[in-house]
Amino acid sequence: MAKCSRTSLSVPFRWIFATVAFFCLGFIAGWFGKPTHPNYASEASTQYIQNFLDEMSTGQIREHLRKFTRLPHLSGTEQNMKYAAQIQKEWQEFGLDSVEMVPYDVLLSYPNASQPNYIAIVDTQGHEVFNTSLAEPIPEGYEDVAEIVPPYNAYSAKGQPEGDLVYVNYGRTEDFLQLERQMGINVTGKIAIVRYGKIFRGNKVNNAMLAGAKGLILFSDPADYSAEGVKPYPEGWNLPSGGVQRGNVMNLNGAGDSLTPGYPAKDYIYRSHPEKGVGLPRIPVHPIGFHDAFHLLKNMRGQLPPNHWIGALNVSYRIGPGFIDDFKNQLVRMNIHTNNQVTKIYNVIGRIRGALEPDRYVILGGHRDAWVFGGIDPMSGAALVHETVRSAGGLLKKGWRPRRTIIFASWDAEEFGLLGSTEWAEDNAKVLQERAVAYINGDSGIEGMHTLRVDCTPSLHTLVYDLTKRIASPEQDEEGVSLYESWHKRDNWTNDRDAPRISKLGSGSDFEAYFVRLGIAAGRARYTKNRKSERYSSYPVYHTVYETFEVVDKFYDPSFKRLRAVAQVRGGLVFLLADSAILPLDATQYAISLDKYARNIAEIAKMHPEEMQQYQVSFDSLFSAVENFTVAAREFHERLRNVNREDPLQVRAMNDQLMYLERAFIDPLGLPGRPFYRHVVFAPSSHNKYAGESFPGIYDSLFDIKHSADQEEAWNEVRRQISIAAFTVHSAAMTLTAPA
Amino acid sequence: MAKCSRTSLSVPFRWIFATVAFFCLGFIAGWFGKPTHPNYASEASTQYIQNFLDEMSTGQIREHLRKFTRLPHLSGTEQNMKYAAQIQKEWQEFGLDSVEMVPYDVLLSYPNASQPNYIAIVDTQGHEVFNTSLAEPIPEGYEDVAEIVPPYNAYSAKGQPEGDLVYVNYGRTEDFLQLERQMGINVTGKIAIVRYGKIFRGNKVNNAMLAGAKGLILFSDPADYSAEGVKPYPEGWNLPSGGVQRGNVMNLNGAGDSLTPGYPAKDYIYRSHPEKGVGLPRIPVHPIGFHDAFHLLKNMRGQLPPNHWIGALNVSYRIGPGFIDDFKNQLVRMNIHTNNQVTKIYNVIGRIRGALEPDRYVILGGHRDAWVFGGIDPMSGAALVHETVRSAGGLLKKGWRPRRTIIFASWDAEEFGLLGSTEWAEDNAKVLQERAVAYINGDSGIEGMHTLRVDCTPSLHTLVYDLTKRIASPEQDEEGVSLYESWHKRDNWTNDRDAPRISKLGSGSDFEAYFVRLGIAAGRARYTKNRKSERYSSYPVYHTVYETFEVVDKFYDPSFKRLRAVAQVRGGLVFLLADSAILPLDATQYAISLDKYARNIAEIAKMHPEEMQQYQVSFDSLFSAVENFTVAAREFHERLRNVNREDPLQVRAMNDQLMYLERAFIDPLGLPGRPFYRHVVFAPSSHNKYAGESFPGIYDSLFDIKHSADQEEAWNEVRRQISIAAFTVHSAAMTLTAPA
Repeated sequence: MAKCSRTSLSVPFRWIFATVAFFCLGFIAGWFGKPTHPNYASEASTQYIQNFLDEMSTGQIREHLRKFTRLPHLSGTEQNMKYAAQIQKEWQEFGLDSVEMVPYDVLLSYPNASQPNYIAIVDTQGHEVFNTSLAEPIPEGYEDVAEIVPPYNAYSAKGQPEGDLVYVNYGRTEDFLQLERQMGINVTGKIAIVRYGKIFRGNKVNNAMLAGAKGLILFSDPADYSAEGVKPYPEGWNLPSGGVQRGNVMNLNGAGDSLTPGYPAKDYIYRSHPEKGVGLPRIPVHPIGFHDAFHLLKNMRGQLPPNHWIGALNVSYRIGPGFIDDFKNQLVRMNIHTNNQVTKIYNVIGRIRGALEPDRYVILGGHRDAWVFGGIDPMSGAALVHETVRSAGGLLKKGWRPRRTIIFASWDAEEFGLLGSTEWAEDNAKVLQERAVAYINGDSGIEGMHTLRVDCTPSLHTLVYDLTKRIASPEQDEEGVSLYESWHKRDNWTNDRDAPRISKLGSGSDFEAYFVRLGIAAGRARYTKNRKSERYSSYPVYHTVYETFEVVDKFYDPSFKRLRAVAQVRGGLVFLLADSAILPLDATQYAISLDKYARNIAEIAKMHPEEMQQYQVSFDSLFSAVENFTVAAREFHERLRNVNREDPLQVRAMNDQLMYLERAFIDPLGLPGRPFYRHVVFAPSSHNKYAGESFPGIYDSLFDIKHSADQEEAWNEVRRQISIAAFTVHSAAMTLTAPA
Repeated sequence: MAKCSRTSLSVPFRWIFATVAFFCLGFIAGWFGKPTHPNYASEASTQYIQNFLDEMSTGQIREHLRKFTRLPHLSGTEQNMKYAAQIQKEWQEFGLDSVEMVPYDVLLSYPNASQPNYIAIVDTQGHEVFNTSLAEPIPEGYEDVAEIVPPYNAYSAKGQPEGDLVYVNYGRTEDFLQLERQMGINVTGKIAIVRYGKIFRGNKVNNAMLAGAKGLILFSDPADYSAEGVKPYPEGWNLPSGGVQRGNVMNLNGAGDSLTPGYPAKDYIYRSHPEKGVGLPRIPVHPIGFHDAFHLLKNMRGQLPPNHWIGALNVSYRIGPGFIDDFKNQLVRMNIHTNNQVTKIYNVIGRIRGALEPDRYVILGGHRDAWVFGGIDPMSGAALVHETVRSAGGLLKKGWRPRRTIIFASWDAEEFGLLGSTEWAEDNAKVLQERAVAYINGDSGIEGMHTLRVDCTPSLHTLVYDLTKRIASPEQDEEGVSLYESWHKRDNWTNDRDAPRISKLGSGSDFEAYFVRLGIAAGRARYTKNRKSERYSSYPVYHTVYETFEVVDKFYDPSFKRLRAVAQVRGGLVFLLADSAILPLDATQYAISLDKYARNIAEIAKMHPEEMQQYQVSFDSLFSAVENFTVAAREFHERLRNVNREDPLQVRAMNDQLMYLERAFIDPLGLPGRPFYRHVVFAPSSHNKYAGESFPGIYDSLFDIKHSADQEEAWNEVRRQISIAAFTVHSAAMTLTAPA
């Protein structure tokens, strides 16, 4: 580079000097004027975030919800395919770069059209003296709708078992244990009747099978599906006596399609024989409403159960087996003719190509298939995905393009075991493992009217807090209040810290394969009930025909502001993950959570102090690993603050470390007996798929202690699981340290 | 940016014009003079490649080999630890950025010092009338050396079984089948005696156990361990009659340390009970030389075997069981007292930090532990790793620094089942999966005097050819001839194409965990014998005390030019992988190989035309996947040619696709029954660990057809494996397409 210096000079020299000086000035202007590269470090595009959030409209969300809840759209039906085509068309119109339909052929399950499922009480002559309803009373305005599937439990075994009833509360592991050990009742050869709630119904079925029941009846007790002071639908949003919760009863443990575990259900993929499918129940299972449950329970004989087994029906909740006195020769007969059949399903996959890093993916996915209309589940979520696509499409038209690729998904067959999302995850496993930054789930947007609920991986905590401070509270009396403040006020994370509560991810929705199998950072958000005062399970009309557009429009969110706020949270997460130069993931939050989980699981083990000593069980290695991780996370973020944002490779390398952090918790060997659950820190509980367990390998090994005949072997398994957890946390720490 | 235009002007305007013009000139100079970023796309550093290759010196290699073969350095001994410390120190002096010792505590196996292992013939009174030698005759010059471990088979079960001998040729699957089915001999309760060679000894042990043998004797037959016209060591390089091949007899299938499968053998990791270890033989196994074998075989009775069972000893090779006539009451007794014990081992890990992409790793690793002196195995390889470090260190001092990080490894306990390399792979699995570009193996550099031998993943083929064209032939009469030409002339790939032969990777050395478990592109190179005319197994003195410095210095490579050429191949691969802006991996070569493998495996299946029709077995899906992959690979390389090399993110993204290509062939579910062999295209053969099988899942399922009682189930497994292979190839194709 030329040097410019100043001295006293004659005219020609002045002229030379001047030209040189101007050359120098020009050189400097050119040197510094030239951008080092196309916009790599710029946060300029995040000016669009407010634009993006503001564009989301309550009116549009209402319209989307209205449009996609007019007709039943069960997975595998023509109507659900039509909605898929419509979504594809509209996403194209909104401006996505590409939108494709991605079909799979998976095992679904439907009632037999000519032989209805029901439960009967039969007398000694075998006559059916009572039958449960074949359908729910149709809500007003929907009388002419065809194709409403009658209540059933998908994948139930066929059969007509007859037997005495035994009532087993919620059908949880502890309920069956109490029944067998404290009440001395053996369920073998009996038909179990349990109430819905507390845990995933598939776990109830598994427990009933393990206990030897030959059939299982699931009923909705008003104690679990009614809010106080609320009228039944359509006057209010409580469950009517004839309402019945549908739902699948599989124990897939993340396998996806039952016949093609681990691989996508495409035409050339080998399918197991239908009887060798993964997770299929071997007994008939059927759901009923509480009006019918009353008739089955009212004459039961046997012991009075403990108080916490007693629901809100006007019966004694005696546990059986069988009926009293005059009815003692009557039996219960289940008539189940449900068929499993391989059926085509359709995911809709839309993309916005990333401007700078098209090979980095942020995914927003939610399901489209519904048991009937899907007023809440899932369309109150699908409407928000739709609105997010519309808003993003608008920005695209204004010239915005995110740094990374955004993938939008409308999943099919979630209700049949998360099938659409899992098959697509299997189909795309390799590219997702290499490229996926985060998965945000888009299932039901609302299940209550109280405040926000967020379940996510710890590395998203900070982003969720930051984002919700930019979003307005949707509550009527809270103008100028942020969603963060509103949420904080209503649900403080008391035990841990002064911030809004964020929970662990469990399962029961489409993030499962992405998070628990592939190790992609994941989160979900929705509006929820008051966890302290509203004790009913999920929401009263869950999976019934009464999940209509009206239940949202009239009761849950007439202004549609709550749903908009949820859309802003979900969409805002996607936006910031896709468009921030530095990935907004926080490893230090992971450290805090790991520390908490390690202390929790050690506390559980300490309930066996003698055995811990005898078998030399120690959590020191896990604590040491967590400490190691904590230091690595802190140092990582220090380095990240000092990264040269002008250097695209430095930024990319550190972003890669953030992206792969979640992947570091994946053990390809899987959890014991659950090869598709591979996340060492988080997995759905073995006892309730809806709940998340931290350090599930250790947890389950400790749980098994009490059932194990060989205590030494059982405690060795605890030790083994502790060492796997410690190793995994150490590995994750290693991924955060400066490479090389 | 200012505009510069030319018009006719008065003097002051001229002055203004001039200054503006010079400003413009300066601006242009500044704009274009400024580098867009630090050297991202530059190939300038590859000017160093010749420098790097030329620096490698025959004298230095000779010196390294001399230095590290003076004393026995069996894994777990103090001497092997001392060599590790010395290597660490020298690598530091050579200039590596860091060199660390990385210990693990693994299950090793040693003879009992006070109870020697041997085999006896016992008479009816139980007297031992013949005993095999306790040691090999010590070669001249080494008489005073302590700590020469007597010949043994590591991990043999302890025991003193007595029984009749049965001779089973090489102990291969087909040999035992022939024995049982055609010769009608049942080995149950007998002691099998088989000759070394053709397959990995661990497979022989497994076959003997499956056949029911209660012990196994392994002997080196001159037919398999002598070259024609060559004298026994020390006059030549043939095996003396007292020489015995040591070696482990594990069936680990990639598990690494037997007691900590899947996890690194660190202090906090749970260890299985020693009797529950993975891969441990359940019968005593012991190796003998041919002088001893003669005494065991000479009096055997029974059938004469087929010709291909007959070796070069002056005996009839009758198969037994037992002895003839006068000796018929004599039995063979094995006396095996070998102990397994958890022992500390030491890897040495050195690093050169990458200048631009420190988070991308190229690994050069070879083992250091030897059965005795390790003159060939492994020190003829370790000396080359050492020389590569020295040469790279010299360049570092001249200001060079590779684009990516280079990792050098001196592995321990390879001879005990690839333990050091596998434990380190387990320990670092996460970062390796994310960051490793390639693994080049550095075991024995020479096993013959004919030409180069390369086994590598298909994506390295092109690089190997390009590189060997830059390296000189080491052969005396070939001045000015390239290694490529020399190699091509001696070993043309006749069936496939006119180029030097490159083979598939099998196993038996330290690349296994990196390639078959983690899916990292891998390769190995060595000087080899003439595969057509020299039919002995490995090399005659393999794993004996006669593997000295002298066997290399006097016979194999007196000029050390062959070893230097091998060092240049291995080091050159590492250099170019670490320093090229665009990764020199070729997906189109993978396509060509996949096509060949698919056709091969389909040919094997076609040997069962009726069954293929009956069970609807088709390879169409696999062929279609390969076609898809072929198109994707071609299009990828077209895009790669047009990539903007000035854009670091575009280059990085395409390099990531190349790096992750090998990873795409990994199935986390593993091959059936072999959870640590996860590569769907390449795995060690189930019947011979040394050999590589392509599409091993399909191959094994086809092999099992003939043993299966349920043909439908067996053919369904073939169909399942075809679909997994097709899916995996499709997945790999997907990783090559343009993202988003």
